[in-house]
Amino acid sequence: MALRVAALAGGVGGAKLADGLAANLAPADLTVIVNTGDDFEHLGLVICPDLDTVVYTLAGMANPETGWGRAGETWNCLATLGILGSETWFRLGDKDLAVHIERTRRIRLGQSLSDTTEAMRQALGVGVRILPMSDDPVRTVVETEEGPLSFQEYFVARRCGPKVRSFRFEGIDTARPAPGVLHALSESEAVVLCPSNPWVSLDPILAVRGVRQAVSARPVVAVSPIVGGRAVKGPAAKMFHELGIPPSARAVAEHYRGLLTGMVIDRQDRGEEAGLRSLGTRVLVTDTVMRTSEDRRRLAAEVLEFASSLAERRPV
Amino acid sequence: MALRVAALAGGVGGAKLADGLAANLAPADLTVIVNTGDDFEHLGLVICPDLDTVVYTLAGMANPETGWGRAGETWNCLATLGILGSETWFRLGDKDLAVHIERTRRIRLGQSLSDTTEAMRQALGVGVRILPMSDDPVRTVVETEEGPLSFQEYFVARRCGPKVRSFRFEGIDTARPAPGVLHALSESEAVVLCPSNPWVSLDPILAVRGVRQAVSARPVVAVSPIVGGRAVKGPAAKMFHELGIPPSARAVAEHYRGLLTGMVIDRQDRGEEAGLRSLGTRVLVTDTVMRTSEDRRRLAAEVLEFASSLAERRPV
Repeated sequence: MALRVAALAGGVGGAKLADGLAANLAPADLTVIVNTGDDFEHLGLVICPDLDTVVYTLAGMANPETGWGRAGETWNCLATLGILGSETWFRLGDKDLAVHIERTRRIRLGQSLSDTTEAMRQALGVGVRILPMSDDPVRTVVETEEGPLSFQEYFVARRCGPKVRSFRFEGIDTARPAPGVLHALSESEAVVLCPSNPWVSLDPILAVRGVRQAVSARPVVAVSPIVGGRAVKGPAAKMFHELGIPPSARAVAEHYRGLLTGMVIDRQDRGEEAGLRSLGTRVLVTDTVMRTSEDRRRLAAEVLEFASSLAERRPV
Repeated sequence: MALRVAALAGGVGGAKLADGLAANLAPADLTVIVNTGDDFEHLGLVICPDLDTVVYTLAGMANPETGWGRAGETWNCLATLGILGSETWFRLGDKDLAVHIERTRRIRLGQSLSDTTEAMRQALGVGVRILPMSDDPVRTVVETEEGPLSFQEYFVARRCGPKVRSFRFEGIDTARPAPGVLHALSESEAVVLCPSNPWVSLDPILAVRGVRQAVSARPVVAVSPIVGGRAVKGPAAKMFHELGIPPSARAVAEHYRGLLTGMVIDRQDRGEEAGLRSLGTRVLVTDTVMRTSEDRRRLAAEVLEFASSLAERRPV
């Protein structure tokens, strides 16, 4: 397939589709723009969970069990941190640690997150461009019934337990899109919204200055992260519920209202097809749950075919 | 043996004797005061090689092959740092890394090096007190024919290759002895100078304000790190040579002139015994090379017996 694509991605689900897109496109034709709202400092290290998940996945190094972290990982540093009474709630593998140490070293030397990401994806043999949404720190804060929690506190330490009320992206007002982000969007023939969490994975990207506008100027295809009323992975469905919205492909489409040209939904949700069409969006019904590499490649090929057919449509 | 002892130690050799002393004394009767001139920042981490070697050795966790680092270590982080094009000249094992990460975290939170060392030795089950010579940074600089090198550059990166001219301990003028150092010395019944490098392991400790004076007020026994004209480990003999001094037990005794009450030398060096006595120091001739745990325990027992017999002697 020859199509210039910009994909917006969060962590595991987004990374899988991005990997499928990479398998179908020439490297120069794909740019993956990744959420950095989950980034945080931990044990003195700059940690970028979504960037790392995307890089590891595209490098073929991701842990196939968890989707995050690395395959063949060891945990000797973390175990020792435990013995020393340090913080171990965030799972840092020995190989993974090297990425955080090297990124932190480069950033302390004054390099941008973009530059460190570029160095990392090259070192790990990833051909496609991977851009952080911004080089400026943006930090997702989950407003919960128990008060505000930083994203990783909410997600890892509290295991998404506290009921959410809203989300804030600290720093978003002054965050500039990373170099190449707006250009990749404006030169793309289609933008793919990967099946990532709308609230905390893609909303931060769309909230970066100029990004929503640049996305809305292109044909946009979203792959629903909600299948059969549940999130394939993570707290997206729980968040919809807690915000008073029944989770569905339609809820996702309404979340992205004003942006979508087409929506890809799972066969389980074919009942929603008519409703989605009534919103004015084109719909592709297929198998969207990616269990294998072949699932990723096949879904991405269908998404690209669909996106390519939408080139002249207006967003709903 | 009941004797209150303060031992001054650098890395591997010092740690071994300290371990032997710990096997012979009640924990409350031994304080090990450790060189921090080798400390450095690397990859954003505060690394204290001698403190770690002493703690690991006394915890029974040291790598028996190398003397430094941990037994049963893995190297997955370091290997990945290599793939990422980062610095790998300083060998950081996965377990060892945890100590640097946790120490760095605590120091960034404002804790002293003493406090972090105390927490670490307790967590790792070491009973005796281990004190850094100072909580203030002191950095050994090796002046070489190729110019000044930081200690770790000289020692690890350059493998002690460049010819030495002199040594400087940056920060020594303002470094205060760590809490407990002067007290441990003044209440000791004997001070043991472990078989560590005189130039770069024990001189920095002795150069900390008040330490030399406090040491010289006690009976002092040095165990020669030079055996048969060679250093048991490390560059001590090479340094003596390059500074124009033939390496020998006598050269060590002269290096510590004004401090020594007694000197422990190896059987190989029994020919030096008379010369040493002529300097006015008492001499114990025994097997000083520590290959096994039993060697450490036995040598330490002899050193303690010897030290205890010197209580009333004046230093030479």
